[in-house]
Amino acid sequence: MSDQANRVWRLTARPESDRIDDALELETEAVPSAPEGGLLVRNIYLSIDPTHRIWMSEIDQYMDPVEIGEPMRGGTIGVVNRSNAEGFSPGDIVACQGGWQDYVAISAKMVRRIDRASNLPLSAYMGPLGNIGATAYFGLFEIARPRPGETVVVSAAAGAVGSLVGQMAKIMGCRVVGTAGSPEKCAWLVDDLGFDAAINYKDGDLIKALRETCPGGIDVYFDNVGGAMLNAVLTLINLNARIVVCGLISTYNDLEQGGDGPAMFRNVLMKRATIQGFIVSDFLRRYPEAFAAIGQWLETRLLQYRVDIRQGLENAPDVLKLLFTGDHSGKLIVQVSEEP
Amino acid sequence: MSDQANRVWRLTARPESDRIDDALELETEAVPSAPEGGLLVRNIYLSIDPTHRIWMSEIDQYMDPVEIGEPMRGGTIGVVNRSNAEGFSPGDIVACQGGWQDYVAISAKMVRRIDRASNLPLSAYMGPLGNIGATAYFGLFEIARPRPGETVVVSAAAGAVGSLVGQMAKIMGCRVVGTAGSPEKCAWLVDDLGFDAAINYKDGDLIKALRETCPGGIDVYFDNVGGAMLNAVLTLINLNARIVVCGLISTYNDLEQGGDGPAMFRNVLMKRATIQGFIVSDFLRRYPEAFAAIGQWLETRLLQYRVDIRQGLENAPDVLKLLFTGDHSGKLIVQVSEEP
Repeated sequence: MSDQANRVWRLTARPESDRIDDALELETEAVPSAPEGGLLVRNIYLSIDPTHRIWMSEIDQYMDPVEIGEPMRGGTIGVVNRSNAEGFSPGDIVACQGGWQDYVAISAKMVRRIDRASNLPLSAYMGPLGNIGATAYFGLFEIARPRPGETVVVSAAAGAVGSLVGQMAKIMGCRVVGTAGSPEKCAWLVDDLGFDAAINYKDGDLIKALRETCPGGIDVYFDNVGGAMLNAVLTLINLNARIVVCGLISTYNDLEQGGDGPAMFRNVLMKRATIQGFIVSDFLRRYPEAFAAIGQWLETRLLQYRVDIRQGLENAPDVLKLLFTGDHSGKLIVQVSEEP
Repeated sequence: MSDQANRVWRLTARPESDRIDDALELETEAVPSAPEGGLLVRNIYLSIDPTHRIWMSEIDQYMDPVEIGEPMRGGTIGVVNRSNAEGFSPGDIVACQGGWQDYVAISAKMVRRIDRASNLPLSAYMGPLGNIGATAYFGLFEIARPRPGETVVVSAAAGAVGSLVGQMAKIMGCRVVGTAGSPEKCAWLVDDLGFDAAINYKDGDLIKALRETCPGGIDVYFDNVGGAMLNAVLTLINLNARIVVCGLISTYNDLEQGGDGPAMFRNVLMKRATIQGFIVSDFLRRYPEAFAAIGQWLETRLLQYRVDIRQGLENAPDVLKLLFTGDHSGKLIVQVSEEP
């Protein structure tokens, strides 16, 4: 990055399927000024999330889509460069929706100050101590509400959210089975994170694998992917099963089609199951509660996490694609500039 | 019926699709004796319900399927003929799972005594003051939990459960839209029951009709049918919409296939919707609460209902088919014998 210019990824079209390169353009612009009562923030880390693909599309969604011509939206951690806001000084570290760019001019109301614990890397605040951690915490404890001894299945279990969900369910005393896309990821889940079992979803019969690893049936399914996994899980749910729809990444490149619901839908009725959609921002005011619990679990090493930091704002679209191919490991982050 | 014999519809095979005639046989047998500590009950009314089709199939369901060779299961109201049980005398009116037959020998623990209010016909205890009423009451107030001013859509709204659900939602102060299969049924919903609008689902574009009748979107959907209706509703749900899956009758003739879930599934996520399966027997202990409320509403005429009584046990299979073609009006009942 340059001190003189602001590189900005702007959305130039609605992407078709996975062709996001056709929909984004990197432009070099003047660095904006800090607004009255606001801040100029230099972005350090840009969070790369499945929901970016949703925001690029024009469908009715949980917030406004990114408009054509706008900077691409994204969560960031940055350092205050200039402040016109009381209580903020240059050098302060903040989290905000800084977007896919080097600098953001933003109201002080729209940033969250990060008071770093001494022993945690800054990137942790984009993982377990950021939206990712809050998503796992509230999705599991407020929506799924597992009880000790229940069987919890998590999809995309080696991903940023899934890996935390599985560990939190273990902390709760549940039997936990995760699905992931490689033998290495599956080994990480079982050997390092303490999952009871892991299924490589690319290995043949999902229902058979679930039946073997969940001999007592499935009480909770924390779904990040949708599609075939959800179908397979529904065949094996127990009475009063709870299914959290946290993400449907397998359908995000075809969102205009609506996304087909699960087959074996009759089991929703037969088993009095609940399927509930969940967006973490609904719990924004309760984030401190999640971060207090997660902070303790990190400290006592009950919770582990991985971040996968890729260098360079210019590579952001390629990094986003990794989410859909699974060729990454842990929370995907683009490093935009150096930590101070 | 005869005093000398017990006619029994037995399940002789698993029906394919809607060919239930191939799966049932009417046999004439000896009238059983009242068991020790139990009752011999003469069936008067046999409730005909969509779930009968589920019980005929072999799929994993919410209770055991009817086994091949067994009498077909069904809810009944009858009169005690002989009693070996303390507290019951010949002439007492009871509700139980008396099955598709003239007489049932049954434990006294398995019957519910009906203490008739003076001014209600006995058939009311198979409608609003029976499982049907409890289904509407608990499905609406415990699962959907509508708030005044919300928009509630009910499918099969001229049916036994749907017509009560819609009226209860009106009592709650909701805007209520029902779907039904004929202009006459739609007129009954709006003109007699006070629904705000009714949609004949056989008339073209469901989404368009829902958009016109639910200009503020849909907050609650009480689903009795599944299939295309659920798809259409999902396109128009509001934030935190609640969908009660009470029945999936459009899929019951193809249950072995599992029943496809709704298209537009992405809206479960985007709108943080809840889809919840519901079986009324989970609320058995709380039935008195429902019947107390419903009894008052019947008395004050806030609640109306229709029963459609067809004569003759021998016609039970044909009556069941009416549920799937919709050629009936209100709660379907087979009269097996005369009221005392």
